[in-house]
Amino acid sequence: MNREQLTDLIKRKRSYLCVGLDTDPAKIPSWILDQFDEPVFEFNRRIIDATIDLAVAYKPNIAFYESGGSTGWRSLEKTIDYLNAHPGGPVFTIADAKRGDIGNSSMHYARAFFEKMAFDAVTVNPYMGHDSVEAFLSFEGKWAVVLALTSNPGAMDFQTLQPQLPVLLEKFGIRTSYWKKLYEVVMDGCIQWGTTDNLMFVIGATQTEMLGYIRENVPEHFFLVPGVGAQGGNLEDISRVLFNKHIGLLVNVSRGILFASSEPDFDHKSRQAALAYQQQMESLLKQKNFI
Amino acid sequence: MNREQLTDLIKRKRSYLCVGLDTDPAKIPSWILDQFDEPVFEFNRRIIDATIDLAVAYKPNIAFYESGGSTGWRSLEKTIDYLNAHPGGPVFTIADAKRGDIGNSSMHYARAFFEKMAFDAVTVNPYMGHDSVEAFLSFEGKWAVVLALTSNPGAMDFQTLQPQLPVLLEKFGIRTSYWKKLYEVVMDGCIQWGTTDNLMFVIGATQTEMLGYIRENVPEHFFLVPGVGAQGGNLEDISRVLFNKHIGLLVNVSRGILFASSEPDFDHKSRQAALAYQQQMESLLKQKNFI
Repeated sequence: MNREQLTDLIKRKRSYLCVGLDTDPAKIPSWILDQFDEPVFEFNRRIIDATIDLAVAYKPNIAFYESGGSTGWRSLEKTIDYLNAHPGGPVFTIADAKRGDIGNSSMHYARAFFEKMAFDAVTVNPYMGHDSVEAFLSFEGKWAVVLALTSNPGAMDFQTLQPQLPVLLEKFGIRTSYWKKLYEVVMDGCIQWGTTDNLMFVIGATQTEMLGYIRENVPEHFFLVPGVGAQGGNLEDISRVLFNKHIGLLVNVSRGILFASSEPDFDHKSRQAALAYQQQMESLLKQKNFI
Repeated sequence: MNREQLTDLIKRKRSYLCVGLDTDPAKIPSWILDQFDEPVFEFNRRIIDATIDLAVAYKPNIAFYESGGSTGWRSLEKTIDYLNAHPGGPVFTIADAKRGDIGNSSMHYARAFFEKMAFDAVTVNPYMGHDSVEAFLSFEGKWAVVLALTSNPGAMDFQTLQPQLPVLLEKFGIRTSYWKKLYEVVMDGCIQWGTTDNLMFVIGATQTEMLGYIRENVPEHFFLVPGVGAQGGNLEDISRVLFNKHIGLLVNVSRGILFASSEPDFDHKSRQAALAYQQQMESLLKQKNFI
């Protein structure tokens, strides 16, 4: 799926909602755990069925599957197959894996998520630099979603350090009148390695005071924004700041939709939560004349 | 396994060799691929049997298993079980996974490698900061091996950027007379979050001109050093520079041992390659009076 197709999908579904499938087995309703051999997949299946007309993307966080070992991995494989075969599709699928290694190893990670499983995108950790990122950019129609500024407390430890100007100039030939932060240098670098059709960035919704500068400096690329809901980010605020002229925005909600209820009708409660987000998104898309 | 136990193991085996199980199915001898349902595990089993008296640690690179999907994951589970039950053990086991996410997700990754599989250590990507690293430091007797300065070309993109001094001072109260590089700030931060019994660092052998400064600034912690052999690092040079007073060094060799031959007796060739490293290590340990 390229940028234009993703944008069309957002307009058609009147939603830029990404449902985060952070399916923690400890939070799945007990009756699902009791009745099914693969409760993680059964839970996901119900959530997907209940929300697929409201969501444009799904993002399983791989940590929650990996902690189940090969069984968890099988649940992940069944989930991506289910998403890709769903009559309510297509949807944009993101493996939230935060991978990154030397080039040859990154290529194996890319194959795992793009070929072995047919995800559209993988989240990528940029710490190891260009060869670690480029492997994920070499698959036709697939995306690397690079961590730039994340939504967690530790984001302030290294991502916001401000490297010396001369080093920047030397590395990327950047002209700048202020001291960029590490995550901005990361974005500057990645933009040279990828295109607007295969590269997006993770920008945490909790980093409100930096969002305006980020969009100003990176006007064309899609942003995937976690941190709305449980982590405290406000949908309206971040949408106003982060929309670009092509929309350019996916907002992820995980816990607020997944675990809206533990009752037998949990999937209806999840749908209600997703619907509230979709309706607000539709309204914001209309205000900006995107639809 | 704590630092003292690992040091004792190194002295007893007269080796600080870590065998990197980067088991690429495309490089496994074809007769193993033909004869076995789980060729990756069968290959690993033979390599382990052929080298376990010469190696102090094993480090499967998870990318090579993940690209096999749930089948690959099962081969990984069988490999760690085989290592932990081996009569030639104990050995120190490192999941080279380069994981890191917000705290709750990192905890799931930690459980995957420390509990679901019984690895002693996991490699951790520090980009997301303290909550992403600390989850891996909270398991008794287990280690986080944090990427500091890696061995790949992309290491020079971000890891060696030099953040502004005032930011450093503010963040970690560091007194320094020179401009630290990002990877040094990462090490400064991590040292405050972990101990010498649960934290080591990945330092690439190819970064020869920086190794001396690194050991001077981080004198106590174990370093895991990839990049010897295929990537060009020299064992003698890096050992002289990176030994600390407790030895404090694990040197990883992957391709140079794993794929020494594709003949039916490949495991003997792998043993010969491992033996050459062990003998050189024994000699270097003796020169420094560690044994």
